[in-house]
Order: sequence, then structure tokens, then C-alpha cells
Amino acid sequence: MVNPDQDKFKEECGVFGIFSKESVAPIIYYGLVSLQHRGQESAGISVSNGDYITEKRGLGLVDEAFKDYEIGSLKGRLGIGHVRYATFGGGTLINAQPLTFNCRLGNMSLAHNGNLVNAVEIRKQLEQQGTIFQTTNDSEVIAHLIARSTTDDLEGAIVSALSQIRGAYSLLILTPDKIMAIRDPRGIRPLVIGNLDGDFVVASETCALDTIGADLVREVEPGEMVIIDESGLTSNKILTGKKNAFCSFEYIYFARPDSEFQGKNVHVVRKNLGKILAKNYPLEADIVTGVPDSSLSAAAGFAEQLNIPYEMGLVRNRYIGRTFIKPSQENRITGVNLKLNPVKQLVKGKRVVMVDDSIVRGTTSKRIVSLLKKAGAKEVHVRIASPTVKYPCHLGIDTSSKGELLANKKNVEAMAKAIGADSLAFLTEKELYLGIGCKEGLCTACFTGEYPVPVKSESKSK
Amino acid sequence: MVNPDQDKFKEECGVFGIFSKESVAPIIYYGLVSLQHRGQESAGISVSNGDYITEKRGLGLVDEAFKDYEIGSLKGRLGIGHVRYATFGGGTLINAQPLTFNCRLGNMSLAHNGNLVNAVEIRKQLEQQGTIFQTTNDSEVIAHLIARSTTDDLEGAIVSALSQIRGAYSLLILTPDKIMAIRDPRGIRPLVIGNLDGDFVVASETCALDTIGADLVREVEPGEMVIIDESGLTSNKILTGKKNAFCSFEYIYFARPDSEFQGKNVHVVRKNLGKILAKNYPLEADIVTGVPDSSLSAAAGFAEQLNIPYEMGLVRNRYIGRTFIKPSQENRITGVNLKLNPVKQLVKGKRVVMVDDSIVRGTTSKRIVSLLKKAGAKEVHVRIASPTVKYPCHLGIDTSSKGELLANKKNVEAMAKAIGADSLAFLTEKELYLGIGCKEGLCTACFTGEYPVPVKSESKSK
Amino acid sequence: MVNPDQDKFKEECGVFGIFSKESVAPIIYYGLVSLQHRGQESAGISVSNGDYITEKRGLGLVDEAFKDYEIGSLKGRLGIGHVRYATFGGGTLINAQPLTFNCRLGNMSLAHNGNLVNAVEIRKQLEQQGTIFQTTNDSEVIAHLIARSTTDDLEGAIVSALSQIRGAYSLLILTPDKIMAIRDPRGIRPLVIGNLDGDFVVASETCALDTIGADLVREVEPGEMVIIDESGLTSNKILTGKKNAFCSFEYIYFARPDSEFQGKNVHVVRKNLGKILAKNYPLEADIVTGVPDSSLSAAAGFAEQLNIPYEMGLVRNRYIGRTFIKPSQENRITGVNLKLNPVKQLVKGKRVVMVDDSIVRGTTSKRIVSLLKKAGAKEVHVRIASPTVKYPCHLGIDTSSKGELLANKKNVEAMAKAIGADSLAFLTEKELYLGIGCKEGLCTACFTGEYPVPVKSESKSK
Amino acid sequence: MVNPDQDKFKEECGVFGIFSKESVAPIIYYGLVSLQHRGQESAGISVSNGDYITEKRGLGLVDEAFKDYEIGSLKGRLGIGHVRYATFGGGTLINAQPLTFNCRLGNMSLAHNGNLVNAVEIRKQLEQQGTIFQTTNDSEVIAHLIARSTTDDLEGAIVSALSQIRGAYSLLILTPDKIMAIRDPRGIRPLVIGNLDGDFVVASETCALDTIGADLVREVEPGEMVIIDESGLTSNKILTGKKNAFCSFEYIYFARPDSEFQGKNVHVVRKNLGKILAKNYPLEADIVTGVPDSSLSAAAGFAEQLNIPYEMGLVRNRYIGRTFIKPSQENRITGVNLKLNPVKQLVKGKRVVMVDDSIVRGTTSKRIVSLLKKAGAKEVHVRIASPTVKYPCHLGIDTSSKGELLANKKNVEAMAKAIGADSLAFLTEKELYLGIGCKEGLCTACFTGEYPVPVKSESKSK
Repeated sequence: MVNPDQDKFKEECGVFGIFSKESVAPIIYYGLVSLQHRGQESAGISVSNGDYITEKRGLGLVDEAFKDYEIGSLKGRLGIGHVRYATFGGGTLINAQPLTFNCRLGNMSLAHNGNLVNAVEIRKQLEQQGTIFQTTNDSEVIAHLIARSTTDDLEGAIVSALSQIRGAYSLLILTPDKIMAIRDPRGIRPLVIGNLDGDFVVASETCALDTIGADLVREVEPGEMVIIDESGLTSNKILTGKKNAFCSFEYIYFARPDSEFQGKNVHVVRKNLGKILAKNYPLEADIVTGVPDSSLSAAAGFAEQLNIPYEMGLVRNRYIGRTFIKPSQENRITGVNLKLNPVKQLVKGKRVVMVDDSIVRGTTSKRIVSLLKKAGAKEVHVRIASPTVKYPCHLGIDTSSKGELLANKKNVEAMAKAIGADSLAFLTEKELYLGIGCKEGLCTACFTGEYPVPVKSESKSK
Repeated sequence: MVNPDQDKFKEECGVFGIFSKESVAPIIYYGLVSLQHRGQESAGISVSNGDYITEKRGLGLVDEAFKDYEIGSLKGRLGIGHVRYATFGGGTLINAQPLTFNCRLGNMSLAHNGNLVNAVEIRKQLEQQGTIFQTTNDSEVIAHLIARSTTDDLEGAIVSALSQIRGAYSLLILTPDKIMAIRDPRGIRPLVIGNLDGDFVVASETCALDTIGADLVREVEPGEMVIIDESGLTSNKILTGKKNAFCSFEYIYFARPDSEFQGKNVHVVRKNLGKILAKNYPLEADIVTGVPDSSLSAAAGFAEQLNIPYEMGLVRNRYIGRTFIKPSQENRITGVNLKLNPVKQLVKGKRVVMVDDSIVRGTTSKRIVSLLKKAGAKEVHVRIASPTVKYPCHLGIDTSSKGELLANKKNVEAMAKAIGADSLAFLTEKELYLGIGCKEGLCTACFTGEYPVPVKSESKSK
Repeated sequence: MVNPDQDKFKEECGVFGIFSKESVAPIIYYGLVSLQHRGQESAGISVSNGDYITEKRGLGLVDEAFKDYEIGSLKGRLGIGHVRYATFGGGTLINAQPLTFNCRLGNMSLAHNGNLVNAVEIRKQLEQQGTIFQTTNDSEVIAHLIARSTTDDLEGAIVSALSQIRGAYSLLILTPDKIMAIRDPRGIRPLVIGNLDGDFVVASETCALDTIGADLVREVEPGEMVIIDESGLTSNKILTGKKNAFCSFEYIYFARPDSEFQGKNVHVVRKNLGKILAKNYPLEADIVTGVPDSSLSAAAGFAEQLNIPYEMGLVRNRYIGRTFIKPSQENRITGVNLKLNPVKQLVKGKRVVMVDDSIVRGTTSKRIVSLLKKAGAKEVHVRIASPTVKYPCHLGIDTSSKGELLANKKNVEAMAKAIGADSLAFLTEKELYLGIGCKEGLCTACFTGEYPVPVKSESKSK
Repeated sequence: MVNPDQDKFKEECGVFGIFSKESVAPIIYYGLVSLQHRGQESAGISVSNGDYITEKRGLGLVDEAFKDYEIGSLKGRLGIGHVRYATFGGGTLINAQPLTFNCRLGNMSLAHNGNLVNAVEIRKQLEQQGTIFQTTNDSEVIAHLIARSTTDDLEGAIVSALSQIRGAYSLLILTPDKIMAIRDPRGIRPLVIGNLDGDFVVASETCALDTIGADLVREVEPGEMVIIDESGLTSNKILTGKKNAFCSFEYIYFARPDSEFQGKNVHVVRKNLGKILAKNYPLEADIVTGVPDSSLSAAAGFAEQLNIPYEMGLVRNRYIGRTFIKPSQENRITGVNLKLNPVKQLVKGKRVVMVDDSIVRGTTSKRIVSLLKKAGAKEVHVRIASPTVKYPCHLGIDTSSKGELLANKKNVEAMAKAIGADSLAFLTEKELYLGIGCKEGLCTACFTGEYPVPVKSESKSK
């Protein structure tokens, strides 16, 4: 099955929290649905009724994980939620978040987007000290560090815990009477603050604010701990002195096109990237097509720039679920276009530019090029609206190992040959910065290998 | 909830059949998934093992209606399938198709896309003659007429039955050893023939052929009965003398953009309609946006023609399921953009052209215009890539009653006011023909009131 | 797996109806649960709101077939319900009852317990006349006969239909404003009338009346049609002149022990049968055990009569569901006592009398005898509280074919040997009558081959 | 609803483990089903493939908690399982066992039947030391104590952990290569060893051995740790010096009648108790009836001793599930006998002895007496085959609080009046010992208040 999503980086998580005048579980539910693209393996909601925390977690999409009455049974005016990334073969509930627990400092619940590069190391130390681990989440490491801090107040314990960890995290902590929202000192993963009729909201992306009708207040700043309680919002700058390193892949692929970061709309950024790509790597062609849904913005920009018609050369079947039945006759259905269908009448005899957002292993690009050629395309030129991915991410994204990355093994020419394209071009890192519209403050480690956080070579992503 | 699909005509059904050298249930499953946009209420598959027919029907999407092992338990080398349209509030299984039954002429199964205008009348007559009805399907009327025919061969009985009915039908009949595919004499609903490595396939749209890797052979002709059995395909022209009247709404809205009818690709037709709309109803504007997913082709054509940037002004949340939980605080969530989100940064301060495929009751158009204005659009101009819908359909589409149709009650100016648009324009019927690229042979009854089949005023669509 | 229920006759159905001052669906639900032992394959409820009938049918036990909210959505003050017997391998919904349909005489719904011996014949005739059949139920034959009657009133049409059929039936017919309860002229299957605070109830067994708190009024008499409507209950003797032939197996095995027929409590009858068995086929033994749950009453009577201790020699695992997983290591688990466990300490070294209600194919008896011997029983004597089953039933019970019946092939001595028993005895037909406490009026066809209704040799039970 | 199970002590758990030559998950599944009466809230299975542990836990009965394919995906030749007790309103998955975790000493999984009286105290201490708790299980306390032990080998760490806890426990610990089975030093909860074709099995009751076809080897002794690994079974007496105190309620009510403890079959013990009750508290009566299913053995013994007919005066509806729909008309269905039906013909005008196993709060006894009287019983005499329950259990059973226990507030005469019985009698503690057939070594704390383990008054049962 040609599945355009299969050969992509996987975002790890989305988080959402709200302190309201009314019951929050339905609002968190909507918030999580709007962040669903950030994680489809499991979903969870924790709410506090002022005295203690109730939680429900489930496998699958948000509307699979929660039944109607379960939302109703989660009573509370403050709460947090989490969606977790998709793996093939189904996940286990034990790793679903938020992680709720009791300790010396009370009852609390943690929702975490990101990845710690020294989690394995700390885990080993904690185990040596007699700690048990029930999950394989980084979040459980954070929970233990908080509980074991000798500081007497929760804020202090959190600062102490975070001072021991290194990596990317946008973290929500729910206690019986407040929500704490914290972003790592480099601001690697996104986290924004919204206002819903006077109630404070925190979410991974602004699209979640739009969905529930909240207004964007501002982003949580790198190294900031925001505390939302009955009296409103207070801010503490708890971790300082690091250079910003916001994940550039949020712009390139992860975020919903209607979200914005640092005042920049994601669709607009992608379209810019497409225009720059067109300007710097032009060609003569009959049509431009994107690969639905992720590269449509970049493809539109590319087409606009070169004044080549932008066509729906590939159509996506929206009804193919994740638990699709396996064909009984393997050999026969192999070539079948279940998820992506080339439109023969559009591509036949044409010189086609296929714009995609990125190439990871290259396997899917190869299949799509082949689909287009079978459908009659005379030439297929591939243009990628990001630089070549040569290094794995250790900061919250599920990437292939270095050896599997196509660009790690081959130069662009060899890559073109490998995927069967008549030509192939990528953006440079400089062009990426230009398209995003900033000069610094981005993490581009997967392109350059320059990690913002010291990374041991064998550090394993979650 | 602003749901762009809510105020649309509803297609009634999709059908699929195949006679193969191998087990067909998995292939029918894939075929139905690719026709899922034609019906989401229920799905069914009937297969024959050469001796008798086995069937399974279920509610919901194809992958909800069938469990993996159920596909495996449907054994047979020939079979047919059906998807049925979505209603709100859930359907009943009793009306799901195919309809399988036994009669004098043997065991058979019927899958029907279309609507009979004299079904109620015939039903009353049959009841008077002692017939019981277990469903409210037109298909059961057809079954009874076949069974009650005095002709001794099945083909004759079918011709006799069809000579009594009036209306739209693309009909598949499975018997233990063959598939019969019949199209009404005006060819109102689509039906195409494909070839999968030598096996014959029939389907409502060509996208189903592409999905399973079959090649298009040709359309079943109006009034033709195609019989597919062990010896191949034979054709009988059984009903003649009527003028073609292919449903123009298949081009405008129903069909998947990658399908083609009469040699014309649907996306290309829609883009043409958008271009004609732009040419004949031009305006100055900053951006053009479609309403995802149905009007994206027309919007792209519109933008291209006028050289106005085509932007993703509205983003659709793909993860909102059909069984979405109801908000507990009605008043609060009312304004919420669960399914459709305007991109503020793109529309703020802009003159926006919103291109849509059609307006039925106008309620959704009104809400989307309002969303765009709230998001900061300076002006919102609505352009509709089809004529004004003034008459209900009686031929296979679930439309509102005449009184509810916005265009039935108001002229274009009043309609613009009603939906809050700064300007509004529709295509004329002539422009529609031009865009589709033919001079005659289309049913445009919902625009003109000129039904290709005599219709009693109170005839009720299924 | 030794399953004491596997080698039994299968009752075909249970029916329940009520006309009330309040919503009846929950009461029908309870009534069906109390009749669950009569059928576990599917369940259905039809109710009328005075104008039209709404129905819901589902596979499995009553509480699997209906979700809570579905009961709530069935609105009406009169209604009927049905449970259908269990087959292995799962049934199909299409055959679940009640069967609801429209015809010349209006909207109605049928629930049927019994079997027609001339259904196949009538079906063929009806098919020749152009009738289609969607199910393989006898009930559909009845529906067609009613619809095709030329009489103008429903009662007349029903009488006309029933005059054409032969066999066993306890039949409930729901129309929009009344319930009709009819019993075949021989009264083969049971049907009782109850009174719940002034509301009339009909049910297959009195245990259903007890469960909902209704009092027994009387049985529906053989050949009687009882009509329950707004004005109360009226009775018509519509079919006369036949000798009573109430199924003796209702006493022996099918009915719940707390039910009563003809003023006789089922448990008391079974205990009597056990006593007579003990008196006429006595022996010396250490303990008596029944096979839970069906023969506990007879075993208790047997033990009491001979003053031998009655012990729980076999214990049943109540939590083994019907959808039990299959062992992955076939060979290993074969000998395993999943459903029935002999109590070693009770049977070891003992002379055991195992009392059972009947022997059909003998396969289970053989396994249980073997279980007891393996558990250390010195001798196992089998006593059966009914005569030898030599003939299949054609009147509403799913029996093995004649050739499979152990008693059809062997005399008692050979049977004893076949099942490994040290001795074996059955009741005679005369002793059966004595134990039930009547001299005539019972159907004992499965023991004697004298069918109360003429039966063609190849007539196939449903 | 009169539910005979509602007013009973609730057993907390059942455990099962096996080290085999073949895949064990299906065998554990069967073992758990046979222990299902010990817990219906949740079920879990952990298996090891030699390297690491895989687990699956689910809510509900064993066959609800596990789907067929899930059993197949648990690969390993050694494993343990757990069933947890039923609460009303559904449990939470977080507390389901086995509890699987990683710590300094490796990967392990714990299944625990019992209750610790100092768990709350230890938990507080551990929290002060920085430990987080994710569940409210005692088992998590044990896990932390093992992980925090400073001993370097696992056996030593377990001994160290257990030396800190007080209470009842039958404990299974699975590591990647062995199973450890431990029983508290007083042997309060049962635990037996079996042999299945050379493979060692451990289980809460012998009925689980019978079910899978294993032979009883012996019980795990109080204070013993049995280690089962590749090389077979080794035994360590790790906790000594305490007097035996096996829970007498296992004999009275919890265990399945076909199980045996200390060489005594449970059914036989119960029958003995019934006989002693009859001998010492005789009366004239017409029939004896038990309350299905728990007191049938005692009732049979009672009837046998006094030579009064033993009748099925109460019949249980076996098909009433746990998720039974709520009646919509509360008032109307209140009096309804959904779960227990008195057989009028047996009790009408009779002097009835109702034998039950125990009285806790007395609410159900009262209802059943009332049912029998309404059914026409002239007199209802209640005989209880155990002493008066005056004290709550703190050792693994979910009891009502002291104040709710009927016998705590009233003498026997007043209790008789409270439940509406014409007479009432209990066994004395001495008679209980006599019936069980031992002189010492039983825990009878709920009758006497003499707890074998020091108990703080506010100690809360799990």
C-alpha cells in the first residue's frame, strides 16, 4: 500500500491544559482532537475536582480512547490532556499519558511532549537507588526526580528535577489546585498560552486555541514556568542561559497549517519554502503536484512562483483507516493504490513536478514516483521543501537510525536515481532559515548534526 | 459545529462487483472503501461460491461494518458490494444492501444506486396483491417485480421488471453463477466496467478501478444489461429510446476528483467550472480560498484564471469523527470551529473570495462567511461553481424539500444578503454545460425543474 | 471440553408480549432474560407506539443484543419479544425474530416458537407464485400466508393462514394497536397468560411472569387466539378438533424448574421422575449425583427415594462463556475439564449413580462416565429420567438425525457398553406419564415415533 | 433486585502460575477462568519469554479482559495470572494485577492475594523517602520494598521486604527466568502446588489444577518460598515462628465446592456444617432449601440429617449479567425477582428451612425471607452454617464496616426479627471447628475479633 504518511518523521506528542470556571473535560477533549496530528497512539485526560485527580487514558484516536459517558465522568474545573504518537502494531496503555501519581508532595499528573537525552542514564541511577519503573516513559523519570527532591515546596522540587535533565520538553503538571506549564530552556518543543473568555489555556499549537474559540495570548517562553491557578497566571523564569532552538520540523511538517509559531503562520512559511525552492531550483514542467496532505502548501508556492499549473495529481483516499484489513492474496494487491491515487488524465504525457516536504528513508518517494510514471507521466521531477535529512533526532521525534536515512548514504544525484526521479532538489539550510523568516534560534540538528543539547551517540529516542 | 458537509446533497449509494479467478471479498472491500464518499451509513458484500450466496451487511463505514475475519468468511469468486448514504441519527440495518433473497428464479442479491419515482405506487399495488415488504428500499420493489414476472428465464424477468419502473438506477444483480450490471435507459447514475488482469469489474466510479489496479474498459451504456459469467462479458441493450440524462451533480460535487465520466476527469471539470466562474464573474480580491474538500478544484481554477493567490484560508480537522461527543455546555461551544478553522493570518484584512461547489439551504455558507469575517476578512465574496439549486432531486439524491432550498425562495442578491456575503455569483446552466464540455445529455433538473422522468409532485425520495 | 449442554436437544425459542399502561421495552427485556434458556442465538423486541412498530434485533444473549440506550429508544406501550436458540458457529441476524413487515393489512411483527412440518412445501408453492423469501424462518411463511389471504380483516386472514399450516406454534403477532397470541390446535409448545397490575402479559413460561412480578392467569388453550388490546383480553377458539399433544420434553429438560405447566411445577415433576426411576430401577450405591444443571431435580428425587446420599459429584464452572478461546495446543488440553469438574474426594472408591435427564447421541454421557472413573469412581451407574430417544423431533426442537440417536441404533445393554456405564436404565413411556401426572395429552413422538401431526420422512427441522 | 451475592463478603483475588515446556498463556487463561469466583473486576496475565516480561490486563471477567488474539500474542513458557475482586460501579485498570516493573534487580511481575495491615504506614514512610505511587495496591508497596532492599540477590531482597510487612499474602513473583510462590507465615490465604505432566503449577485453589488436568502436589506451606525454574522446584522456609491461621471463610463461602484445603473437600466440609447445624438446632419443617449457589451443600447436609425433603425452593436466573439495564420505572420493577425466584408450588403453605452460609448485613436475608413468605411459605426458619459475623476482616476480604454487621448490633433473637425469620440459628465457633475437622490453625477473627496479626483499629482493607 502506498501510504504517504509511512515514511515520515513521527511527532511524539501533543499537550493541552485549561483552568476554567466550568467543567473542562469536554474542552480538553476538543483540544486533543485538534492536536490529533501530533499523536494517534493513545490519548489521556486528567482533571482535578479541587481535592484529587481523576484520569482516563485509552488507546487509539481521541474518539476511540474516550466514550461519551467517560468524558462526563471526569469532573473538574482544571485539567490536562495528552495525545501520543502512532506506532505500527499498536501501543500499550501503560505508556499512555498523562502519568498520574502520589508522592510526598501530593497527588499530581504529568503530560510531556519531548525527549530527554539523559533519561536512560538518570533511570539507571534511580534504579540503583531502589526506584521501580512501571513505564518506559521519560515522564516517569521526571516524576521520580520531583518526588525525590529534598525541597519542601513543589515549585522548588520541579526546578530541582528539571535542573538534572537535558533535552526537549514542553511539560504540563496538574496538581489538585493548579496547572504548571513549563518549556525547556531552549524552547525546542512548542507551547502556547490562550485565553478562553477569561480562562487560561495551554496547548502545543495555536490551532487548538482556534478550535475551542480561545485567543492566543503568547507562547510560553523557553525556560519559563507558568502557573495557572484560581488567582490567574503567574510566570517564573526558572531555567536560563541557553540559546533558543525551536524545532524547524514543526514548520516543515509536524504542525497543522493553520497554527502559528513566533508570529508566523505555518502554511505561509511552507508556501514561502515552496517559492524559494522554485526560485532557486527552477525547471520547465507542465504541472506541479503536492503529496496530500503535508506538502500542499509548499507545492502551491512552487507553482505560483513558476506560474506552472498546480494540479491535484495525487488524490488521497480519506476513508482508509489505520486498522485496514490485510489482503488475502499478497502478491495480487501489492501494487494497489489504496491510499494515494494518481490522476491519469492530469499526469499522462506530462512533465510533473512533485513537491514534498522532506525525504527520510526515500522508500515512499520512490513508490510515488513510480505511481506517477505508471500513470503516464513523461518526467517526474522531485522538489523537497527542506534540506537533506542526514542525522537522527534525539529531541522528541521518532526518526529512523542514521544508517537508514537516504541522505546520509547518498548525494543528491544518487538519491534522485534511487527514487527514480528525473531530477531532485532540496533547500539549503540557509534557504530554510530564509523561508521561515528568522536568522537564528532554530534547531536544525537533523540537517546539520549540530545538536543544541550534548547528545551521546547511542542515546536512544523514546 | 461548522461542518462543511452538513448542508450538501447526499449521494445515495455506490456499487461494486467482480467476477474473478480468486476470492473476491477482499477486492470488493477495497472497492467499497474507494467508493466510501458515496455512502457512509452502511456497507454490504454478497459473494457466491458457485452454488449459493453468502452475505454480510453492517452499519457505518466499510471498516466498521466488516471485521477482518468476516471478510475471510465470505468465500466466492464472484460477488457484489454496496455502500449506502449517511443520515444523521444512524440508520437501520434492515435497509442496508445488497438485498439477498430466494424466489422462483433462484437465489440472488441486488445492489442498487438510484431512486425510482414510481416505487411507492408499485409498492401499494404489490401490497394489494398480497406481497409483504420487510424494508423501505426501492430495491425490494425491484426484487418482487422480478420474482412475480411470468417469464421463465431470469434475463426476461429482469427486463419485465425494469419495464415497469421509472427513475434512476445503476443495478448489480448477483446470482450463484453470474453478475448482471444494468443502467437505466437515461444513464442517470454512473456505472463503469473495468478489467483486472482479465477479470471483469463493475463499479460506480473509475476511482474504484484505480484503487484495485484495474483498467477502465468503458461505461455501462444507458439501457444496457451487461452479464459477466465464467465465459466473459456479454452485452444486451434492453431498454432503449430515451435521451441521456447523466446527473450533472456527479461532476459538481459527488464524485471523487480522480474519477472520470465520459472521458472527462472530474477534477479537470471542476477546475474548468472555476475558471469560467472567474472569467464571467470576476472581481478584485487578495486571496481565493476553497471550502475543503469539495471545492478545492474549482477554487484553484478560479484563482489561476484571475491570477489571485490561492490560499488555504480554511483548514479542515481530519480527525473529527462522525460520532463526536456532544458538548455539555451547549451555549459555550456553539461558536466553536471544530471541523473548519479559518487561518487568521491569511484572511485578516483581506478581500477573500470563497469558492464553493453549490448552495443548498445556505446555512453552512452563512456560517463560513461569518467565520471568515470574525477571523478578520475585510470582504467575503462567494462564488459558486454551479447554477442555483431550485428544485429537489427525485432520482437518487437526498435533497431538502423545495421550500428549504435557498435559491427557491430568493434571488441572488437576497441570497447574498442571507449568507452575509459581500457579493455572490453562480454559474448559469449554459456555463455549466460549457465547463463540463458537452452540449446535452445531462440531468440538470435540480437547477431547471425539467426532470428527465415524469415526476409526481409529492414523490418522496428514499 | 466436556460440555454437559452440548449433547442435548435444543429448544428453538421463547416469546414474550405485554400491553401496558407504561413503556414496555424494559419489561420485555426482563421477560426475555428469564426465557434466555430457551434460546441464546439472538434476541429481538418489537414495540408499537400506537401508530407504527419499531424493532431491534441482535445476536447473542439478551444483554449482548441490546445496549442500554437501545431499550430506551424503543417507545411503546405494547410489544413483543423473542429469543432464538443457540447454534454453534454463530447465527445470522437475518433469521432473528420478531419478523416485522408491511402488507395489505398493515404493519405487523411476528414472534414464533415452534416448527411447521409443511413449511418447505408451502414455501415452494409461494415461490412459484412469485413470492420472495429473505429469511429461512417458518415465520416468513406465516407472514406471506397472512398477506396473501383474500379476507379483509386481520383475524380472518390469520385464521386462513393458520388453516394452511401444520405443526407446532406458539405465535405472537403485534399490530400497531394490539397483540394476538395464538397456540396451535394441539398445544404442542407452551404459552401462558399473566396479569401484571391489570396489564396482560403472554409468555412461553410462567417463570417469565414470576420474574416481572405478574400473576399467572391461565394458559392459552390449544387452538385459541387471544387478542389483547386497549379494551382488555378477548378469546377466540379458532382451530379445533385436535387432540392435545404438549411436548413432554418441556417437563423433562427444556423448561426452567420454577415454571409450571397445566398446574404442575417442573421441578416437582422432575423429582417425581427421579423417584419413579429409583423405585423401578433400584440399585445399591454410595452416592447419587446429577449433571448440573439440568438433572439436579431428578437426581435429588432418586437419592431421596433410595436414601442414598445425594452429593455434588460434578461441579460446573459458571464462568465459561460461549466464546471461549480455543486452546493453541489441541492435543494437550483435550482431556481438560473446563466446564464440568468431578469432585475426586466424593467419588473416589465409590459406587456412583449418575442421574441425567436424557441421552441423545450419548457422546457427552460417555465423557462424563469417563471423567468419573478417572476421578476414582469404583462403579458408575447411569439412570435416565426419561425414555429412550429413538426418533427426531419435527415440532420445534433441534435434534440430531435419526441415525445419530444412540437409542435408535442400540438396545439398552449396548448403550450402557457404549457409554462405559456399569449399568444403565431409562423410564418407560408409561412411567413418564405417571411422573408427569397425566394419562394423555402429551407429545412423546421422540420416544415412540408417533407424531401428533403427519410428518413426511424427509421434513427438515428448522 | 434480589441478588443473593450482593450481601456477601468479597474475596479479593485469585492467583495462578505455571512454568512449562510450552506456551503458557492459554493455560493461565483457563486457570484464571476456574478461579473467576475469587475476583471479577479485572484479570491479568504476565509471561516471560526468557528475556523479558510481557503483560496484558483488562477489566471484567477473564473472557472480557482478553481477546483471543491477545492470548496468542503473550509468548512465553513461564507466567503468572491474577483475577481481582468485583466492586460495583466498575474498577480502574490501574489497579489490575499482575504489577509489572523494572528495578535494580531486574524486570519482574507481582500477583498478590491478601491484604497487608501495615501497608498504609509503610506507604507513608516510602513517600517521605521520595517514592511515587501509581496505584493504590498493597502490591506496589511490596514492589518498592523489594527494589529498595540493599541485599544484592533477589531472594534476599524479597525476604527483607516481607520481613517488613504484616498481614495476609499469597504472592507470585515472575522474573524473566523463574516463578517464586510465597505464602505468609500464618498461611492465611490459600496457595497450592500442582503438577501438569511434569510442569509445576501454582494456584489459589485445587479446582484450577483439576480444570487444566494437573495433579495436586501439596500446599505451599505457611512462610515458605517455592522457586520454580528450569531445574524444577526448590523450597525455602523463609518466614517462621507464627501459628497457622488459615481463613475459615474459604471453607464457609469463598472456595469452589470442588476445591480442597488441607486434604478436606470444601463441599464435604459445608455439608458437615449443615449436618451439625441440623443436629444442634433441629426443628420440624416441611422442606429445606438453600440459597443458590453458595449454600447448596450446607442445605443438603441439613436436609439429610433431619430427613426433611431438600427442595429447589429458590431458583437462580443464570443469565442475568453484571451490566444489567436499569429499569426505567423504578417503582414498578422494584419488587421484581430478577435473580432469584421462589418456587411457589414448593413453598406455598409449607414450613420452610432456608439454609444460608453466612449473614453479613442481613439485608439480602431479609429480602429472601420476604420473597418466600410472599410466595406462600407458612413459616420461614433460617439456619446459618457459620457463626455470627461480628468483626470486619483486615486480611484480604472486603467486608462491611463493623457498624454495618448485623450480628454486631443485635443478638440472635433480634436478628431473627430484623430479617423476618420465624426462627434463626447459627453455629458456634466450636461447631465450626468440628465441621471443618480441625482443632486449631484457623483464622476466625471475623467471628471472634481475635486477629492473628496485630491490627490497628483504623486499618483500611484494600
